[in-house]
Amino acid sequence: MEPRVKLWFEEGGRLALSDYRVRLLELVRDTGSLARAAAGMKLSYRRAWGKIKEIEQNLGVTLVESEAGGAGGGHTRLTPEGERLVAGYRAFAARVEDAVAAAFAESLPSDGPPPA
Amino acid sequence: MEPRVKLWFEEGGRLALSDYRVRLLELVRDTGSLARAAAGMKLSYRRAWGKIKEIEQNLGVTLVESEAGGAGGGHTRLTPEGERLVAGYRAFAARVEDAVAAAFAESLPSDGPPPA
Repeated sequence: MEPRVKLWFEEGGRLALSDYRVRLLELVRDTGSLARAAAGMKLSYRRAWGKIKEIEQNLGVTLVESEAGGAGGGHTRLTPEGERLVAGYRAFAARVEDAVAAAFAESLPSDGPPPA
Repeated sequence: MEPRVKLWFEEGGRLALSDYRVRLLELVRDTGSLARAAAGMKLSYRRAWGKIKEIEQNLGVTLVESEAGGAGGGHTRLTPEGERLVAGYRAFAARVEDAVAAAFAESLPSDGPPPA
């Protein structure tokens, strides 16, 4: 038997952030492009953009910013607040995963292996 | 923004125990009757029984035991293993809830109230 956990954040009773949404933001951060982030999630550009706008509206913060054109085309990056939120979510999730393993071992100790 | 968590146990990749299933077992424990436990969950007797048998089969343990009749009718109770599992699940869930709150406060500290 093993413990499983699903985590998310809500704001005012609405889904604000989840593993899925954080992956999308991380892809923006790592690729510098909303188009590439969308492709990485198998989402249309329009749908990826809509998701990010929805997260921003639910939280009342700006998470991504774009700068136009130049020779290499536009660039999209996380704002400092976006960076902080993604890093905070990942730190939170890692801490909870550790706590889940510890709580399981303490609360439901196995009988251990049979004596040799 | 607030953290939310959903917990469950799996055995061999299959759902073994969840809040819902633990509530059913607790109702058996607290009412001494599978019929009353089923009614408390708005399940048919047959469906409640099936759920308990499914949990038992997935985990390979006997969780409830019944004794027949007499003047007051039959009685169903948790086995010692059933008691241990329900108590362990609840202790696990309480520990994780505490850890979630602590991890959230540490990972995503709010900016705090404005200075007075």
